[in-house]
Amino acid sequence: MRKQELDTPYVIIDLDKTEQNIEAMQAIADKAGIGLRPHGKTHKLPQVGRMQVDAGAVGLTVAKLGEAEVMAAAGIRDILIAYPIVGEAKLARLVRLAEQADVTVALDSLDVAEPMSRAAEAAGVSFGVVVELDCGFGRVGLPPGQAVLELAQAVAKLPGLRLRGLLTFAGQSYDAADEAARRSIGLDEGRVAAETAAQLRELGLEVDIVSVGSTPSSRYAAQVAGVTEIRPGTYVFGDLTQVSLDAHELESCSLTVKVTVVSRPAPNRAVIDAGTKVFTMDGGDSPIGTGRGYVVGRPGITVAWFTEEHGMLELSQEEQDIGLAVGDTLEIIPCHCCAVISMFDEVAAVRGDEVEAIWPVAGRGKVR
Amino acid sequence: MRKQELDTPYVIIDLDKTEQNIEAMQAIADKAGIGLRPHGKTHKLPQVGRMQVDAGAVGLTVAKLGEAEVMAAAGIRDILIAYPIVGEAKLARLVRLAEQADVTVALDSLDVAEPMSRAAEAAGVSFGVVVELDCGFGRVGLPPGQAVLELAQAVAKLPGLRLRGLLTFAGQSYDAADEAARRSIGLDEGRVAAETAAQLRELGLEVDIVSVGSTPSSRYAAQVAGVTEIRPGTYVFGDLTQVSLDAHELESCSLTVKVTVVSRPAPNRAVIDAGTKVFTMDGGDSPIGTGRGYVVGRPGITVAWFTEEHGMLELSQEEQDIGLAVGDTLEIIPCHCCAVISMFDEVAAVRGDEVEAIWPVAGRGKVR
Repeated sequence: MRKQELDTPYVIIDLDKTEQNIEAMQAIADKAGIGLRPHGKTHKLPQVGRMQVDAGAVGLTVAKLGEAEVMAAAGIRDILIAYPIVGEAKLARLVRLAEQADVTVALDSLDVAEPMSRAAEAAGVSFGVVVELDCGFGRVGLPPGQAVLELAQAVAKLPGLRLRGLLTFAGQSYDAADEAARRSIGLDEGRVAAETAAQLRELGLEVDIVSVGSTPSSRYAAQVAGVTEIRPGTYVFGDLTQVSLDAHELESCSLTVKVTVVSRPAPNRAVIDAGTKVFTMDGGDSPIGTGRGYVVGRPGITVAWFTEEHGMLELSQEEQDIGLAVGDTLEIIPCHCCAVISMFDEVAAVRGDEVEAIWPVAGRGKVR
Repeated sequence: MRKQELDTPYVIIDLDKTEQNIEAMQAIADKAGIGLRPHGKTHKLPQVGRMQVDAGAVGLTVAKLGEAEVMAAAGIRDILIAYPIVGEAKLARLVRLAEQADVTVALDSLDVAEPMSRAAEAAGVSFGVVVELDCGFGRVGLPPGQAVLELAQAVAKLPGLRLRGLLTFAGQSYDAADEAARRSIGLDEGRVAAETAAQLRELGLEVDIVSVGSTPSSRYAAQVAGVTEIRPGTYVFGDLTQVSLDAHELESCSLTVKVTVVSRPAPNRAVIDAGTKVFTMDGGDSPIGTGRGYVVGRPGITVAWFTEEHGMLELSQEEQDIGLAVGDTLEIIPCHCCAVISMFDEVAAVRGDEVEAIWPVAGRGKVR
């Protein structure tokens, strides 16, 4: 099948570009001599997870236990759940997961670690643990200092748990004013993590994982001695948010949404068959002045606004002259690719114009 | 099962409140002597669609062909697809749908109507058509005037199509400054639709549907003579956006998200296991000063900000004194219920504390 035959809206993954994105980030990690552990929450696709591991990634990161189960079922062996696992139902699933994969969990309290320890011990399995360090984002994690050292020491003593090291996420890189600020955040994140790891080693603890990074900060944090791995996610496809952060080239964005024009109520207005239930409200405006998306090959079209199932396009005079009719299809690069893929049950994996496969988004809807 | 046993995040539908919401809107329509055709895009649940029809609704509205297929499969007979159906693949499905339900489609151009006519004629079926009139929202639809009359006349002549009347959507009611402005928008929408319907009748056309309304404007548009039906959607559950528009009472909101605290990194901060991939970025802040959601029974907790899988809560001193620990669960009324339900594969239908049923969100992911 050719992509021209796909009904709309449909998510199209360009395989050539995706492979290049995977290789480019792997090269950054390889050059720094550290591991790459891509975040699977971006793609939620075991097939892409396998591509990343086959290209040299040390394993995968996921946000949810359900995503971990999907990746383990696809044969991914080394999985970091960058999320505290809380509650009996999830602990029972975590035990089953640990029987088929090497599982490490990020956490920031004994309230999470102790029930994990009891569940592991009762089942005769073990879970890796990384302690989450907050380097300024203010989400999960303890700030650098005595508390984080004490938590790591306590975790190291709990049966069924293996203290692996530390994890940070410098999400503030998304709000940084410019590239210099992002560089500073990335370097700082790496430095704080490496210093804390050194303190843990002084206390006699083994630390083999010092895991850092968001897509915009990864390339900087990777340069800091002592960091052992980076966890970028969005780099695999790229999107307009990453372009606006100088973290991705527009031409390398490999995920598009194919849409159809369903109404032309005015010469300068067209309506497409996708709104927030496809593109979501995530992300700011396009950095290249095209609104809430970028229409590939039609830079004079602005993705002006969305309602749930409608997208309103504004056409420049030049685009009106080129023409756009009911039934015409377009491909649009979204503001936030991770959000878009969450809205679809399946995507098309495409090389050139040829649809190589329809992939179920196996990790979608794994909210628990 | 009791709702206390549901793992998180989980969407909980309170059946008692939902039934009351359904009855209250049906009473508004009944009092005005017009039909209620609820928008199914809010719930995407055939079970709730049936509740609405059983309570007196004339049929259902949907946004997507895939949603119509789900509702028809559940035995809903009268379905309005408030969306132009474009492309051969969808027309083939529309033909099959018309074999099992009475289907009416909204459109605003002959570019949509003519292929529909050809498909209907070839298959020996017929589609109802309502012409979409733009009463100021600037989305799909032609403005009042000659063009809309000409389109209706042309549609009436096309084989396989049955001109049913007109449809408007006053989405600008969501941006109105106050209740007086919303009232004005609703009355204006009804008046414009009724006047255009009268013009069509003068031209000798039969008009049995004059369909208006968003949830905030429905109760006003319903009062205008000549309007035959209203199409509110969100009223069935309510959410903080509707509360802020004086269109719903907080106490009547019947959809909540059950969540678990997974981190307590600071005395005034808690992190829950749901972010934008559950709550989405839709909707503004809560009208009652509680941020991006309202924690039932805990008014001193602010839902401060989200990332994809994390929700950050801020606790007042009083809430800190009450206490909130890792593992505690909360129920949160979201900003936009239609968006939240789209993120889940299933929801719990609950009466009191008892889970009466787990419903698959059968209309979710029906993007095409």
